[in-house]
Amino acid sequence: MKDILNNLDKAFENKVRLGIMSVLMVNDKIDFISLKELLGVTDGNLASHLKNLEKKQYISFEKDFVDRKPNTTYKATDTGKQAFKAHINAIENLLK
Amino acid sequence: MKDILNNLDKAFENKVRLGIMSVLMVNDKIDFISLKELLGVTDGNLASHLKNLEKKQYISFEKDFVDRKPNTTYKATDTGKQAFKAHINAIENLLK
Repeated sequence: MKDILNNLDKAFENKVRLGIMSVLMVNDKIDFISLKELLGVTDGNLASHLKNLEKKQYISFEKDFVDRKPNTTYKATDTGKQAFKAHINAIENLLK
Repeated sequence: MKDILNNLDKAFENKVRLGIMSVLMVNDKIDFISLKELLGVTDGNLASHLKNLEKKQYISFEKDFVDRKPNTTYKATDTGKQAFKAHINAIENLLK
C-alpha cells in the first residue's frame, strides 16, 4: 500500500490530456477540429496539450490536405496506449 | 458527447489530491503522518494539497493531542465525497 501514487502518470493528470488520450483509445485517429469540438477546449489549449503528449511520444500526428486545406490527424502510439492503460489501472487500484 | 471534460473536477487533477481523497473515501479519518506515509510524499507537498482541499471544503480536520504531541486528523466532508464520486464517474464516462 506504500507509495500508492507511483504508478500514476503525471502526463495524464491534466484533464485535457486525460480527454485526448481517452478519445484516442477508442478512435484510431482524429483530426484537430473534431478533437477540439469533442473536448470543448480552445485551439491554443488543445495545441499545447497535444504538443506535451507528442513530446512524451504518447501520440503521433500526420499532416495532409482535405479540400486543399491543411488537416492534421492525431493517433495514440503503442507507448501512449500502454502508458494510459497503466495510469487507469493505477487509478482503479487507488480506489480499491 | 460534447464538452466531455466539464464534469471533471480540477481539484482532483493532481495525483496527490486524488490520493488523499481516495484514502478518505475508505477511511473515516486519518492522521497527517499516516497519510504522508501512505502516499509517499513530503510534509510540504502533502500540507499544501490538504490546504487546497480544505479551501474547497472537500475535507475537514481536527487537532488534538496524542501522548502530549499535537496530532491532526483529516476526514472527507459530505461535499467532498459527493464531488469525488462525481469526478470518478466523469472519468468512467470518458473512458466509455
